[in-house]
Amino acid sequence: MKRVMSDWYQKKICGVLLDITGVLYDSGPDGGTAIPGSIDAVKRLKASSLPVRFCTNETTTTRKCLVEKLSKVGFELKETEIFPPIPAICKILQQRNLRPYLIVTDDSRPDFAGIDQTNPNCVVIGDAESNFSYENLNKAFQLLMCLEKPVLFSLGKGKYYKHGGKLVLDAGPFMKALEFACDIQAEVVGKPEPAFFNTAVQDMGISADTCVMVGDDIVGDIGGAQNSGMRGVQVRTGKYRPEDENHPTVKPDGFVDNLAQAVDLILAGQSK
Amino acid sequence: MKRVMSDWYQKKICGVLLDITGVLYDSGPDGGTAIPGSIDAVKRLKASSLPVRFCTNETTTTRKCLVEKLSKVGFELKETEIFPPIPAICKILQQRNLRPYLIVTDDSRPDFAGIDQTNPNCVVIGDAESNFSYENLNKAFQLLMCLEKPVLFSLGKGKYYKHGGKLVLDAGPFMKALEFACDIQAEVVGKPEPAFFNTAVQDMGISADTCVMVGDDIVGDIGGAQNSGMRGVQVRTGKYRPEDENHPTVKPDGFVDNLAQAVDLILAGQSK
Repeated sequence: MKRVMSDWYQKKICGVLLDITGVLYDSGPDGGTAIPGSIDAVKRLKASSLPVRFCTNETTTTRKCLVEKLSKVGFELKETEIFPPIPAICKILQQRNLRPYLIVTDDSRPDFAGIDQTNPNCVVIGDAESNFSYENLNKAFQLLMCLEKPVLFSLGKGKYYKHGGKLVLDAGPFMKALEFACDIQAEVVGKPEPAFFNTAVQDMGISADTCVMVGDDIVGDIGGAQNSGMRGVQVRTGKYRPEDENHPTVKPDGFVDNLAQAVDLILAGQSK
Repeated sequence: MKRVMSDWYQKKICGVLLDITGVLYDSGPDGGTAIPGSIDAVKRLKASSLPVRFCTNETTTTRKCLVEKLSKVGFELKETEIFPPIPAICKILQQRNLRPYLIVTDDSRPDFAGIDQTNPNCVVIGDAESNFSYENLNKAFQLLMCLEKPVLFSLGKGKYYKHGGKLVLDAGPFMKALEFACDIQAEVVGKPEPAFFNTAVQDMGISADTCVMVGDDIVGDIGGAQNSGMRGVQVRTGKYRPEDENHPTVKPDGFVDNLAQAVDLILAGQSK
């Protein structure tokens, strides 16, 4: 039985935040595939009077390449509309004079080009895919154990995501591994941290209580959005699992079958 | 300032449990090196009237190869004196009709020879070293997510150990990674589980309160032994770190510089 929840789109909406992977498209070995209806849904939303931003924990590639990848799949996004963790962590590293040992994908390294990585005094992990090797994790661990004040940043703390039709491990589990090994707590940069959501909301010039976040991750997207003062709506695409509808701690403001349905409801509410 | 604790060796001792790595020898790329004084200390202990067993979370190799490896370093141990997690997990797998997907070292696989591994319905992780790859961890994760009742066994849950002069990650952090990713709790087979310690204590035919455990792991060896009713004495070799002397939760019954000093004190107490 699917629950009926209508309150989320009947209340005032002044802007929309969208997750990318699992909402717009599913990633995969050949650049991924658009989720049916999502290309048109993004077009309709952008053609409306509502501002739209894309809030993603995507760290496997640069923002530039992400735009190109999405363009090939059929989405026309601008770099300035996308809020991923790497630009945010680079700002933090510079402000705090930190030099990271990075566990990230090779493809995402260009976005760290301006960051001094010599003689590291902190560790940054993103979704590193096969760079989550025993060797690299040991290097990070040994560095953290040598630091008087060990600092570990995790770009998001997602448990898993869908890649090439399969669920695969995200950065979160490896963050937990290093936290346990070193008896430390990581600083998360990315969803579900409210500070991260708020950057995108502020960029739209709206207040959080008039913003709707649409995502496929019950904890990272929905729980995080709600903790930031927004409404959180979960799509039944991407990493969605039926168990999410009875999640022990997070109750979405609404469920929709996909982004197209979410946009239908949002725009119907606007036209009243 | 080193604390003086004498109570642990002045009370009755009827048997001794020794950890192997970090107490007898330090592992390393060339088979490892004996810790100074430990070869002689084991000889003296075995020549005394006290029974001795070796309780280890070593899972990188078979029990047979471990005996051979230790023999090359200078220790004469029998297979029957050594209690590692693999024989214990094999018994559990057979009793519960479980077929494991294994993340272990290639060298330890012969000890699982009698275990059906087709169409796996549980996951077993040991100290797998470089077999802790993103690919293998994803396979374990995907299997656990498909099982109606996911069962994850971790052979020990050590945070790290010393290998080739460096601290490297043990199985514990990877257990935490899979626990977090799948929202499950692993079953630990090995130290610090009392059931595991007790097998070795029972083999000596003594009661736990007359047994002394000597180890280098403040949580796995000392905390585990104390929770099993034994005294736990920490050596200042192996993975010992000065911070251990002010550990937030575990207070050893005694600290010694090395196994040789522990044996000196134990035998001096016996000769009274």
